[in-house]
Amino acid sequence: MSDRREFRDLAAPEEARAVVDSLDIDPGMATVALADARDRVLAERVDAELDVPGFDRASMDGYAVRARDTFGADEATPETLHLAGTVHAGEKPDVTVAPGTAAEISTGAVMPEGADAVVMVERTTETDGGVEIRTAVTPGENVMPAGADIAAGARALGPETRVTPREIGLLSALGVGEVTVRARPRVAIVSTGDELIRPGESLDSAAGEIYDVNSYTLAAAVEDAGGEPVLYPHAGDDFEALESLLHEAAEECDLVLSSGSTSAGAVDVVYRVIEERGDLRLHGVAVKPGKPMLVGTIGEAAYVGLPGYPVSALTIFRVFVAPALREAAGRPEPRTATVTGEMAVEERYTEGRLRYMPVGLVEDGDGSTLVYPVDKGSGATTSLVDADGTVAVEPETELLPAGRSVEVTLFSPEVRVPSLFGVGEDDPLWSRLLDRLDAPRYLPTGTADGRRRLRESVPDVAVVAGPEADDEPGEALGGWTREWGLAVAPESDVSALSDLVDGDYRFVNCDGGSGLCHSFDAELARLADERGVSSAEVTDAIDGYELTAGATESPARTVAAGEADAGLALRATAAKLGLDFVPLGTERVRVLANGDRTGKESVERLAGLLGDVDDLAAALDGFEV
Amino acid sequence: MSDRREFRDLAAPEEARAVVDSLDIDPGMATVALADARDRVLAERVDAELDVPGFDRASMDGYAVRARDTFGADEATPETLHLAGTVHAGEKPDVTVAPGTAAEISTGAVMPEGADAVVMVERTTETDGGVEIRTAVTPGENVMPAGADIAAGARALGPETRVTPREIGLLSALGVGEVTVRARPRVAIVSTGDELIRPGESLDSAAGEIYDVNSYTLAAAVEDAGGEPVLYPHAGDDFEALESLLHEAAEECDLVLSSGSTSAGAVDVVYRVIEERGDLRLHGVAVKPGKPMLVGTIGEAAYVGLPGYPVSALTIFRVFVAPALREAAGRPEPRTATVTGEMAVEERYTEGRLRYMPVGLVEDGDGSTLVYPVDKGSGATTSLVDADGTVAVEPETELLPAGRSVEVTLFSPEVRVPSLFGVGEDDPLWSRLLDRLDAPRYLPTGTADGRRRLRESVPDVAVVAGPEADDEPGEALGGWTREWGLAVAPESDVSALSDLVDGDYRFVNCDGGSGLCHSFDAELARLADERGVSSAEVTDAIDGYELTAGATESPARTVAAGEADAGLALRATAAKLGLDFVPLGTERVRVLANGDRTGKESVERLAGLLGDVDDLAAALDGFEV
Repeated sequence: MSDRREFRDLAAPEEARAVVDSLDIDPGMATVALADARDRVLAERVDAELDVPGFDRASMDGYAVRARDTFGADEATPETLHLAGTVHAGEKPDVTVAPGTAAEISTGAVMPEGADAVVMVERTTETDGGVEIRTAVTPGENVMPAGADIAAGARALGPETRVTPREIGLLSALGVGEVTVRARPRVAIVSTGDELIRPGESLDSAAGEIYDVNSYTLAAAVEDAGGEPVLYPHAGDDFEALESLLHEAAEECDLVLSSGSTSAGAVDVVYRVIEERGDLRLHGVAVKPGKPMLVGTIGEAAYVGLPGYPVSALTIFRVFVAPALREAAGRPEPRTATVTGEMAVEERYTEGRLRYMPVGLVEDGDGSTLVYPVDKGSGATTSLVDADGTVAVEPETELLPAGRSVEVTLFSPEVRVPSLFGVGEDDPLWSRLLDRLDAPRYLPTGTADGRRRLRESVPDVAVVAGPEADDEPGEALGGWTREWGLAVAPESDVSALSDLVDGDYRFVNCDGGSGLCHSFDAELARLADERGVSSAEVTDAIDGYELTAGATESPARTVAAGEADAGLALRATAAKLGLDFVPLGTERVRVLANGDRTGKESVERLAGLLGDVDDLAAALDGFEV
Repeated sequence: MSDRREFRDLAAPEEARAVVDSLDIDPGMATVALADARDRVLAERVDAELDVPGFDRASMDGYAVRARDTFGADEATPETLHLAGTVHAGEKPDVTVAPGTAAEISTGAVMPEGADAVVMVERTTETDGGVEIRTAVTPGENVMPAGADIAAGARALGPETRVTPREIGLLSALGVGEVTVRARPRVAIVSTGDELIRPGESLDSAAGEIYDVNSYTLAAAVEDAGGEPVLYPHAGDDFEALESLLHEAAEECDLVLSSGSTSAGAVDVVYRVIEERGDLRLHGVAVKPGKPMLVGTIGEAAYVGLPGYPVSALTIFRVFVAPALREAAGRPEPRTATVTGEMAVEERYTEGRLRYMPVGLVEDGDGSTLVYPVDKGSGATTSLVDADGTVAVEPETELLPAGRSVEVTLFSPEVRVPSLFGVGEDDPLWSRLLDRLDAPRYLPTGTADGRRRLRESVPDVAVVAGPEADDEPGEALGGWTREWGLAVAPESDVSALSDLVDGDYRFVNCDGGSGLCHSFDAELARLADERGVSSAEVTDAIDGYELTAGATESPARTVAAGEADAGLALRATAAKLGLDFVPLGTERVRVLANGDRTGKESVERLAGLLGDVDDLAAALDGFEV
């Protein structure tokens, strides 16, 4: 398989960056209406084509006068001028200010012939047919001469200026209706694979179909970098279709990005297309995640082949492609948003490639930043949102000990450290309680993992369910009780725990690390005890005892899908899914705070919220505070 | 006039902020397609509705096996299994892995019935009808179980999550085709005034018409803050039309912004509308710029009346309105982008109101930041782009001495300190040369101002033209020569300087601070000398000698517009405007560097560029290096 053959000589990251930078993705220029110019980048210098203001303009409400008529006037000895007329803003003056006269004038109005200054209204008094001037003004006073703001012919804005509201203001003043800007590089997004289904469409999991993650993700990332994404339909694994798609994309776009070519055949097609019509400049880069990267040209377009796994694809895009795209779009590199923190746990890594290690951040009790690795494997999409940035780990670094200071490059300057970081049981009341916190992060990896990580002192809180541990870590902040048992199909004749042991029913268990599973085991132990047999005898008799599923709702969902007779479940879940419920007991869910963090603002806030969860419990069947 | 009557009790800035914050501009929720969700904010929690992956998935290319069939296998003692078939990604397995058999499998494919692990292809050798397994695997190895990434029912994303490419990735994986987000607050933008013309349309300056600066500027600022601007047609000063426009805007939008009500009548209408249908909560705030601010409600909508001058309107918007809009849109406040610098010159201010003083920034030779006030008056639009941010000057601060450390709030986190700051002559070659620098700032305020400010050591460079000063500041970096004289209409019979003095021609001069004007004065002095008269006698004889216009091209443009017979001009300008030219001399344009900045990178780069301006000179009539 060719994709395996080619990775012998991986390019160094700097080399890959240089090769991507060498691609020509310059999109040229475009003309846009002023109303659409925000955030665009001027392609050319803009010179003023007219004077601003376009006329000598009164800058105060008052009286337009000949300055020399006011010389000597003051509060004690006012000068009275004859009123010659009025000039409003937006009208051509039909009055001439002759010596000894004045014209009432509004801010912004055209100075009438003869007048060379304005006396502000506050220093005047209107009299019968005239006006008393109580101050002297100099020629030009309270008048903005034509062109004083900017004169016709003067340089207004330089090329490469980013258009913000302020530039739009100046362009408006100059009457510019449209501007010449850098075009957005058009970026083709080609995802291949028969298994890919667009989000929003229906999916056949049993046939291995999966939702296409890369297309919309890369499209959004392309927009962030100033490009204009163009999504192409999936080529599937019809290689002729893929070939013509790549040609079409290369003709229509400045850059073609492909991803998700999991089959060797697809890579072969890409190779053939590049060999026929372009130039392959790089295959494979020594980074993790993201090794399989292709860089080259197809016709006039640049081409980058990204790995198929979303985290890998986005990492390669961010590190190698986005800078080139921003350069082509005339966008400045964002201020590098970095945070320095300490490794919360040790991390070993021996693959000898530069690693962009995804990490999460949490503030400890002192307000300093702890950094923990987030790695559910490249195939996981949740690691996209469970991390805040990456730490670049050099190829020769095999161990990052806990406490080692590291620099984290945030995914974007807008990334904020989550206010609260929790790990533990998947629980519906807790999930709703989290909605009341500002930007929390919670990993529902189960009670056992919550305890383990709280002992390592990484999260702020752990949420544990089921039997209490002998050496329960942390400090209890609060909790609630939930009823658990078996979710069974409405027509089922499973009505007790013993039915699972004695009958011929297909059962689905919860994950072994969950509190629910522990409560279930305790109940099974009680049953074994009653019967005078070992626990193993009881569990061996349950068809599916070892069949575990991820989250709290998973076993019940398996029952609802008709794939099992009974599943370990909460009463609330059975009710939600319209299943019958065989109650087996209640268990306590407890929120445990990291002892170092009880003074942390978000933990204090959580403690307060925990005192008032009656409404949440009332909305969930079988929950009590 | 009512707008003058009302400003007696100006609200404190904090009070104004509180009043604006008390307005209800919550736009509710909206549903958008995933492809349009970037940068939106989730209005609701998103729970996973399906397992990801949706099936037990092979995470390696290799062979799906029963793990126990591999126990004991290693490189020395491989285990051979019978090949039962193949499973590709995206297809339903049609093979069952019975004891002693294996199925070839691709990354991403559905694990076939019976198999519980995958042996990676690198540790296998295909044989005739079978496969040699050279390593042992444990159950679950190289398999991602259904729901392991995220399980159905689990919390995926919380409310108020900002949607970035990473969230789009997770939502894609979950098959979410559309998401419920915070709607964008609809913001009506109403500009009033008969004098306002939309940019791109034609303008009658003589009738006092001006381009509408606030509409597009505020629209862009509203978009920056997460709102959706809705531009309404100008109501002019037809008060019934304005009244019905305000009612319409209030019914269609969450917030109505008006600006540009320069006439007292317009303010009266706004008052009446608010009194009839709403609630006036504030009139006038003690800040500069921006005193005349109205806050209230019209029907169900919030209303804020902004001052008419663009700098004032944008300042009030930025300080008071944008935070409330971002809050309503669910946008986080941007990281406050501040820079600390030293006042480059002293600034006096005695109006006793909190002042948001617009300032420009420049790096001095040591790399520290100097801060200089930018104030061309509230009516100027160039100050929008000539400043980088504002310094909040407390009401009681009457003097900021040079050297005082101040904190500058940048207009946005993306603002960069200009690489080079120059002041001086308006010159076409220099303008083109600036295009070759990265993000320079240049104020074409004339040779005299350039010299003055270079002596104060604020800019990096000054550009001076005309006769050399006795005490020329700075160090000469380079320069060029330009031919100057009189621009005259093609049919004109002005052919010499003496015609202006002796004939009956209308002349337009350049601004007194320009080098061009100084060269002209020197030439006039020579003529006076020749004739044995005083310079004043000569200048008095020129009709329009005192009539100056802003930029280098201005006098020639006045001639081109048919409003004068002759204008002081460069040969290049006359050629550009299609005018005839009466040559009077040449003058040197010199670029002078601040003595402290010659080592500054941009100044060094400029010095380099100045060595090679032949192409620029060749493109301009009458220019020579």
